[in-house]
Amino acid sequence: MGYTEQEKYMKKAIAQAKLGWKIDEVPIGAVVVKNDEIIARAHNLKEKKGCANYHAEMVAIERACKKLGDWRLVGCDIYVTLEPCAMCSGALINARIDNIYFGAYDPKAGCCGTLYNLPQDKRFNHRPNVQGGILEQECGELLSTYFKEKRKKNVDSRTR
Amino acid sequence: MGYTEQEKYMKKAIAQAKLGWKIDEVPIGAVVVKNDEIIARAHNLKEKKGCANYHAEMVAIERACKKLGDWRLVGCDIYVTLEPCAMCSGALINARIDNIYFGAYDPKAGCCGTLYNLPQDKRFNHRPNVQGGILEQECGELLSTYFKEKRKKNVDSRTR
Repeated sequence: MGYTEQEKYMKKAIAQAKLGWKIDEVPIGAVVVKNDEIIARAHNLKEKKGCANYHAEMVAIERACKKLGDWRLVGCDIYVTLEPCAMCSGALINARIDNIYFGAYDPKAGCCGTLYNLPQDKRFNHRPNVQGGILEQECGELLSTYFKEKRKKNVDSRTR
Repeated sequence: MGYTEQEKYMKKAIAQAKLGWKIDEVPIGAVVVKNDEIIARAHNLKEKKGCANYHAEMVAIERACKKLGDWRLVGCDIYVTLEPCAMCSGALINARIDNIYFGAYDPKAGCCGTLYNLPQDKRFNHRPNVQGGILEQECGELLSTYFKEKRKKNVDSRTR
């Protein structure tokens, strides 16, 4: 209702981020879309997997590959609530995804426009399009609220 | 036997690359070393997994994390036969690895000195040291021979 197509899918990525929060993961979510259908949904699994490879984008890429039976995600777009880091930007290039849509910008590690714009580097053999700032405020507030509550909890547990 | 410490571990990474070749993966191998002990060995698994996330470095990182029970690979070094791409360079930064030693330089996708030197970017919150060119010729020839044979096979199958 009043949402653009891109905002509609970003809402689904936000829903994934919230599922991550429920199991105490940093709330970042992603969905992969092909032909107007969501073919993969994922949230950050770093803590659960005990490995920083498991950012939401990486898990979403793997699930999309499984669904399509192909490592090439041609004709696919990803919607992710936070600007991809170097690892995830590289993975999206390697996976040959068409479009990267992200929510909040990441001033510390963002590699889709902030520190670098890796997907748009002409020297790589594939160049996904990039568009940031989709439901930026909602995506960013989810993260800032999560960290605020986490710090509060840590203070509480220290004073107990 | 005339090998430096670094060449000794690169030899182990090369052995992994050759195991990859046996199952028709592009022959790239990696080992993770902590306190003079190899804690993880891996080769490229992209074809087998049907997903380009499974570069040798990514698999090695995950196995090392499992072994240590920690997503932080502090005090660990990686030895990999080919210069890490953007994804793998980013993953090694995220995993907080100490040193990245690689064999052959990758003119098309290398992000540890060739196209970028991501691990040495002061804006990221961790900066692994990087040293390339260890047993460079052997690592490079493994790849060029693999691709030469693959092209030959393809031509053979087309003419049959």
